Amino acid sequence: MKKVDLNCDLGESFGAYTIGQDAEVIPFITSANVACGYHAGDPLVMRKTCAAAKLAGVAIGAHPGFPDLAGFGRRNMTVTPDEAYGYTLYQLGALAAFAQVAGTRLQHVKPHGALYNMAGKDAALAGAICMAVRDFDPRLILLGLSGSAMLTEAEKCGLRCAREVFADRGYNENGSLVSRTLPGAMITDEDTAIARVLRMLEHGEVETVTGKIIPIAVDSVCVHGDNAHALAFVRRLREAITAACITLAPLNEIV
Amino acid sequence: MKKVDLNCDLGESFGAYTIGQDAEVIPFITSANVACGYHAGDPLVMRKTCAAAKLAGVAIGAHPGFPDLAGFGRRNMTVTPDEAYGYTLYQLGALAAFAQVAGTRLQHVKPHGALYNMAGKDAALAGAICMAVRDFDPRLILLGLSGSAMLTEAEKCGLRCAREVFADRGYNENGSLVSRTLPGAMITDEDTAIARVLRMLEHGEVETVTGKIIPIAVDSVCVHGDNAHALAFVRRLREAITAACITLAPLNEIV
Amino acid sequence: MKKVDLNCDLGESFGAYTIGQDAEVIPFITSANVACGYHAGDPLVMRKTCAAAKLAGVAIGAHPGFPDLAGFGRRNMTVTPDEAYGYTLYQLGALAAFAQVAGTRLQHVKPHGALYNMAGKDAALAGAICMAVRDFDPRLILLGLSGSAMLTEAEKCGLRCAREVFADRGYNENGSLVSRTLPGAMITDEDTAIARVLRMLEHGEVETVTGKIIPIAVDSVCVHGDNAHALAFVRRLREAITAACITLAPLNEIV
Amino acid sequence: MKKVDLNCDLGESFGAYTIGQDAEVIPFITSANVACGYHAGDPLVMRKTCAAAKLAGVAIGAHPGFPDLAGFGRRNMTVTPDEAYGYTLYQLGALAAFAQVAGTRLQHVKPHGALYNMAGKDAALAGAICMAVRDFDPRLILLGLSGSAMLTEAEKCGLRCAREVFADRGYNENGSLVSRTLPGAMITDEDTAIARVLRMLEHGEVETVTGKIIPIAVDSVCVHGDNAHALAFVRRLREAITAACITLAPLNEIV
Repeated sequence: MKKVDLNCDLGESFGAYTIGQDAEVIPFITSANVACGYHAGDPLVMRKTCAAAKLAGVAIGAHPGFPDLAGFGRRNMTVTPDEAYGYTLYQLGALAAFAQVAGTRLQHVKPHGALYNMAGKDAALAGAICMAVRDFDPRLILLGLSGSAMLTEAEKCGLRCAREVFADRGYNENGSLVSRTLPGAMITDEDTAIARVLRMLEHGEVETVTGKIIPIAVDSVCVHGDNAHALAFVRRLREAITAACITLAPLNEIV
Repeated sequence: MKKVDLNCDLGESFGAYTIGQDAEVIPFITSANVACGYHAGDPLVMRKTCAAAKLAGVAIGAHPGFPDLAGFGRRNMTVTPDEAYGYTLYQLGALAAFAQVAGTRLQHVKPHGALYNMAGKDAALAGAICMAVRDFDPRLILLGLSGSAMLTEAEKCGLRCAREVFADRGYNENGSLVSRTLPGAMITDEDTAIARVLRMLEHGEVETVTGKIIPIAVDSVCVHGDNAHALAFVRRLREAITAACITLAPLNEIV
Repeated sequence: MKKVDLNCDLGESFGAYTIGQDAEVIPFITSANVACGYHAGDPLVMRKTCAAAKLAGVAIGAHPGFPDLAGFGRRNMTVTPDEAYGYTLYQLGALAAFAQVAGTRLQHVKPHGALYNMAGKDAALAGAICMAVRDFDPRLILLGLSGSAMLTEAEKCGLRCAREVFADRGYNENGSLVSRTLPGAMITDEDTAIARVLRMLEHGEVETVTGKIIPIAVDSVCVHGDNAHALAFVRRLREAITAACITLAPLNEIV
Repeated sequence: MKKVDLNCDLGESFGAYTIGQDAEVIPFITSANVACGYHAGDPLVMRKTCAAAKLAGVAIGAHPGFPDLAGFGRRNMTVTPDEAYGYTLYQLGALAAFAQVAGTRLQHVKPHGALYNMAGKDAALAGAICMAVRDFDPRLILLGLSGSAMLTEAEKCGLRCAREVFADRGYNENGSLVSRTLPGAMITDEDTAIARVLRMLEHGEVETVTGKIIPIAVDSVCVHGDNAHALAFVRRLREAITAACITLAPLNEIV
């Protein structure tokens, strides 16, 4: 029976600042990518988030990002591979401590924002991240964009890989995401978004922004929990997937 | 045969900024307190410092501090016990990852600067730090000021404790250090400093700033490696201790 | 005719993080305390906040705080007078540039959070802040807790002073605020809060937490705009003040 | 009589961390680029640096950089023009306050590191920086790489421009600097470096890394004061320039 994971970024609040509706989205997902204090999150938020995920039976992953709280980790930074290795290892170690105290352990690692995007195309950067993951814990799963350089490097490192797709994003013919600055970047119609996800899951294909059909492999679908609208969509998506007789399961039951 | 540890703060450089002469002091110490990126240190420095300590056979400890790089962790901050717990756990987890990658594991934890001083007197703060240490790894040794509240709390938590003394600081009658703003805070004469350490080690006592003799227990002596003068003193102290037939050894061979 | 200012903290958002409902509260206040990037705020927020205040005819003040974004400037830090001077001057200069670009200039300075509280009691700290204000622009008004050490130091520096009161806080017999950790700290009943403000304004007195009546001088009342409840209260307070034939005006028309 | 400015980056220390030998290099330069707390520097360092420059008669300029202390402002960051405008204005305002308190005012602005390099080629980024400078104080001089996009934008904004050259760097045929990752990037022989500067000053030309002679205009030469070697070079360069009957003068006497 086919399985798929629903992953969501959690623990992005910081000090007096709140982002996201973590408590509301947790019941609908199977894996949580938890911010590690660089682009978002702080120790109190990390502790609370790990405890809530554990309680709900949601698997925990590290969501390391660039050291850029002001930019929420969304701005490209030209870090060296050594810096990427160090930044990843630091954040993995810190979050793993909170997972352990919550009575669980890390399932996966998904780089955040600009680090995710850059490492999806830059093999040296991706390789440095993957080596940090492997050196820290070779059992960890690397969650990355389906078809990206990051997953190629993860395989080279001997890491288990999970292939992520997006319900609400347009795809280029080479499998990359359409840049947010271009038309077709966002799929705004919910029915269309859900139909696209089901097609990816059932037929392993997606229609690109140019109208071409390309193959795409799916282990996990990225969802959001920032607002009421996003939460309602997660609920609908979850129902549509279940109705299609596909089981929702965390990554470690899939890859 | 009596044993004592020599501990030194290492890994305090940050980015383009260098502090300390780590490579020079490492051959003379038995335990290193490595900064964890809050008050000093960064992932590249942490990686390099752990590798150098491991290579030299020096035991590695975490040196967590307040999140105050601008103040080098030397300024009191009124954090809650929950914040202290989270800050400690975060830094322990991060450094432990670098120790592991260097092929070793953490031996001890010594809070830094203002966190050390505040937790030496504040049982609630000390308790929060010790609980984070115990929850992370109950085998870790808590290194704190001999006779302080921090060690009392560490014992309550079931942690192994190591009692630290200072060669170059004056003591009050209650065993606390004379504040740096008061006369008698610093022991500037090297011969006097060495004689005081030997008296602590051989007779378990120290003369306070008021002239009274008080008992003091010693597992480790704190030394510095910031400059040529400090390095020369470490060398002399080490020779004096060895000449007194006391063995230098890391904390895990002592407590 | 009696006049009073209504001041509110604005511009506390940071990067992707939003705090406060600035656009909603601006129509109801006469002076804005704008965060300067240390405890909250960033250059984009500062620019937008200054432009909005200028457009609405609300006077702009600097709201300098401790360099502690993680603690929102609410945690005591033992900074030296030199540090306090530098931190204040830095933040004043930065915000003044945005006020200028918005086509206006700074009216006042109100320290934030723990800096406000500490400087309310510590003459050396208050003096350092006031010297920075005076050295930067002697025309600036220092807005501080009515009866506090900060205003005494501001007067010594030759600064114009504005005396602030709180609608929702209990007072001790010496005019200080009841600590938030003690009973009586918060006035939660809105009618009571409004009646207290009117009594301060019309009779120059307030009932302390012990039941004693003490004199209190008022140039400005601090209000909040964080949520719907706070906004509704500001509206009611404003109506009650106007109904009592007291004019609302920015500080520079009062002191 | 021909004049030239010698500019040097100063005030790059931070908290307990020291970089540079500011006191030693100040006597040999005519303009100082002072770090503003983003990539380096802090309020205490800014205050001290402005006071020292003022005392020595050295003109003060702002040296704004990316908000990246860990990378010393040397890493490219994809900021938007609005962010660049805000970051520049914030840092200008902050430093101008310290210049004023030191009894002087800002003469110029020179972006730092990666911001300098990126704005040298990116007109939108350069334009945003120049607008911030003009909006803050249209009398300020923009100091940028001779022949770069930054100076073109500065002229469009109506700012006075100063053209900077490097004694120790190789040039491409289009007037840009040879990347540090390529051969020919650094001119390591001191005699060659000095001869190149004199040729630029006296003949308005430089030999590129390919051997071609290209025209180059010079208002200021960038020098360094990080170590004894750099200091000795500044001294030699200064003597060579003076011996060639070219007067050393701050930018405001040249452009």
